[in-house]
Amino acid sequence: MTTFYVPLNRTSGIPLHRQIYDGCRRAIVEGMLRPGQRVPSTRALAQELDVSRQPVLTAYEQLLHEGYLEGRTGSGTFVSAALPDDLLRSETPQAERTPGIAPRRARQSASGDRKADGLGPFRMSLPALDRFPHTIWSRLVARHAHALSHAQMAYGDAAGLLSLRGAIAEHLRTARAVNCEAEQILIVSGSQAALRLVAAVLLERGQRVAVEEPCYPGARAGLGAGGAELVAVPVDDEGICVSSLNKLGRKIRAAYVTPSHQYPLGMSMSAARRFALLDWSLSQNSWLVEDDYDSEYRYVSRPLGALQGMDTHQRVVYIGTFSKVLFPAVRVGYLVVPPLLWERFVQAREAFDLFSPTLYQLALAEFLREGHFSRHLRRMRGVYLERRNALLAGLARHCADHLTVYNADAGLHVAVLLSRDANDTDVVQRMAQRGLTATALSSCYSGAGRRSGLLLGFGGSSERRLLHATGVLGEVLRDSA
Amino acid sequence: MTTFYVPLNRTSGIPLHRQIYDGCRRAIVEGMLRPGQRVPSTRALAQELDVSRQPVLTAYEQLLHEGYLEGRTGSGTFVSAALPDDLLRSETPQAERTPGIAPRRARQSASGDRKADGLGPFRMSLPALDRFPHTIWSRLVARHAHALSHAQMAYGDAAGLLSLRGAIAEHLRTARAVNCEAEQILIVSGSQAALRLVAAVLLERGQRVAVEEPCYPGARAGLGAGGAELVAVPVDDEGICVSSLNKLGRKIRAAYVTPSHQYPLGMSMSAARRFALLDWSLSQNSWLVEDDYDSEYRYVSRPLGALQGMDTHQRVVYIGTFSKVLFPAVRVGYLVVPPLLWERFVQAREAFDLFSPTLYQLALAEFLREGHFSRHLRRMRGVYLERRNALLAGLARHCADHLTVYNADAGLHVAVLLSRDANDTDVVQRMAQRGLTATALSSCYSGAGRRSGLLLGFGGSSERRLLHATGVLGEVLRDSA
Repeated sequence: MTTFYVPLNRTSGIPLHRQIYDGCRRAIVEGMLRPGQRVPSTRALAQELDVSRQPVLTAYEQLLHEGYLEGRTGSGTFVSAALPDDLLRSETPQAERTPGIAPRRARQSASGDRKADGLGPFRMSLPALDRFPHTIWSRLVARHAHALSHAQMAYGDAAGLLSLRGAIAEHLRTARAVNCEAEQILIVSGSQAALRLVAAVLLERGQRVAVEEPCYPGARAGLGAGGAELVAVPVDDEGICVSSLNKLGRKIRAAYVTPSHQYPLGMSMSAARRFALLDWSLSQNSWLVEDDYDSEYRYVSRPLGALQGMDTHQRVVYIGTFSKVLFPAVRVGYLVVPPLLWERFVQAREAFDLFSPTLYQLALAEFLREGHFSRHLRRMRGVYLERRNALLAGLARHCADHLTVYNADAGLHVAVLLSRDANDTDVVQRMAQRGLTATALSSCYSGAGRRSGLLLGFGGSSERRLLHATGVLGEVLRDSA
Repeated sequence: MTTFYVPLNRTSGIPLHRQIYDGCRRAIVEGMLRPGQRVPSTRALAQELDVSRQPVLTAYEQLLHEGYLEGRTGSGTFVSAALPDDLLRSETPQAERTPGIAPRRARQSASGDRKADGLGPFRMSLPALDRFPHTIWSRLVARHAHALSHAQMAYGDAAGLLSLRGAIAEHLRTARAVNCEAEQILIVSGSQAALRLVAAVLLERGQRVAVEEPCYPGARAGLGAGGAELVAVPVDDEGICVSSLNKLGRKIRAAYVTPSHQYPLGMSMSAARRFALLDWSLSQNSWLVEDDYDSEYRYVSRPLGALQGMDTHQRVVYIGTFSKVLFPAVRVGYLVVPPLLWERFVQAREAFDLFSPTLYQLALAEFLREGHFSRHLRRMRGVYLERRNALLAGLARHCADHLTVYNADAGLHVAVLLSRDANDTDVVQRMAQRGLTATALSSCYSGAGRRSGLLLGFGGSSERRLLHATGVLGEVLRDSA
């Protein structure tokens, strides 16, 4: 809850509701109130300003109508996460930006596109926060917070809460054909933590790890953080090129892959390629790290099972996260660890940060157990399909002359290619000036041969907003051409 | 909430309340119900057993009276965290133990004594969970869970929530004489994570880091996890021996110290020693890592400020945690980072796990801002002083012939020495058989010259329980003599 200063002049002749409207709008435009922030209730603001409630109601209605504010049933009124694009020129949320550090560009950042500023249209890795069953979730959290026992307030197990691990294992077996038991599930604070842990356990300084080219920048940061040497291996339409892997001379300790939905290009790995990859790992005695970051959503053809489920020799370490199926700030992810690596992973995890907060584990376990999670997934499939289709329709209508859709089969983003001579980083910067938060495809490459393109997230924006944003994108592209 | 099976025989002639009492008691003794676990309300259990409520009430009263159950106002009835000691033979909480892994001894574990099984008397690093303002805290958590905005559900800042960082900086400046601004505070998931981060940023594989001898085992695990070489430097009554530090030949990158309350022995570092240590770090161009894990509580003489506050050359990385001033499962700790190291720390933190869960940061910021935190600290000073005095009185009464109190000046544990020929690991095992959870002093040493002793935590046990436990300890020591 935020209070803010609205200067009122009772003798100016300007109606009070107009003054309140102007004051609120200015607070939003100038960044005193930020997207997602809660504003006072009409009753509270009226009291604070010492006016009757009616002018505040009128002002709020206008602000709601114009999209500056949004209401959420039962929980109040908020500054819109999706502000009209001409308002998004100042980057948000500045108040929470680390002072003294220049805004990081996606390419430099450990978390890659996820740290891109703002919640503007096309922001990557962002789920439909507006469709999350917030009431159910917060009720679960509140209930467990109230009932937290002494044992639950004390030190927990490094591997995580057994009830949560069991629920995750069950989900993975049925939804992702992962071959696992609760005893193999290691709860960590998101997929970045999982990647960093993989580096700590499997990769010594100077050892080599293969990553896809192009690749998720956060994976490069996590896997390389302990001093391992990253070796970029190209992908083609079937996924990572195992023939190239086979040609690498010196020992490769592990290969990092995104078989269900290649990050960033979007294709899924063919069955033949999967078998070849498993053969490679067996013949080289190397590990495979499977990052299954958003495979729950697939819009064409049947979903593919996980690579892990095809592995009969305990070579695959599987990584999953709740950042995209719940919301990022929940900070819960997990690994499925081959039994023979289990002790080393648990020990490393303990040296990292002992264990994960107990409260969210309890709430999450119940959220899964009670069926809320699978209901949410089912509903989101429809929501994301519509958002994806809206994005594709908008791109076809407004941007067809300037880009080609490369892949839109799955997940929460569409990869599009620009013409070879277009500088995608420039385009992204110009988009940011119009309030759009996209990621340059070239930022996911480490070597030469970067492709020019855009990664357009659609998870966090409504259809209307996506359609509107494609119109703006079309203007940006025409201006740049 | 747990349901459990109580076999009733309505024709046996044994009163129903007695059968219910027996059934519940057996469920506790045999570990079906575990310490801290919630039991059904009398109404719910009566309904489930299809009996009237009276016999259930009678049975519960008896169990409450005997200490098997404990009530917490407004939140139900629980199996006592502090079970009568003859009931604590089976280790808890087994259900949440990682299957397939043998119980780790303190010495092997990254988290040292903190993973010791059970919540028995003398358990280390455990605060007074029964005196935590649970209602206020859970209300704050629930309120923020309900009001979580879209921006707060999305990706947060790697450094942490600015409001929380500001509140921590203010607390540290006034309570610990730490010289810091909000911009230097880096929120992480506990002090273990802070130590691991220090290792990632300051220590490359093969580089040397000095640690105190004896030392907190979790620090050895965290600092050494990246391949740094640990060099044990003895402590005397004034803290780490800087003369020994000066004699070490090859470059020492950093020294890890616990100046306010040496872990495990308990003394605080003299002012002269502090200046010598700062001189050493300056002359050697080495870093100092100050772990201020429980300095909020001090029972004799005035509290000393932090070493960090005496440092005028940005050589000290300061580590703090909420595990002991709130509760361990909150998983929030922090570093105060010298400005010139800031970027490297934030980058490494991001590669580790992006950022900390937003909800607890919001609740914690308000808990600090609204004064609940300082009120809680003030209250706890009195509580811990009484618990410490009860422990000392009990030791004087029951154990004086077999041990010597080494230090009880501060924090949540007392260090006692056993006779030179006593095997403290054996004693700890025999104590465990009697339901006592202590830590062997020798387990904190890495080399020869281990002292034989016990670390007796008093934070998590009531005075009555501590007095009783010292009686049991006296018996154990007499039997071992």
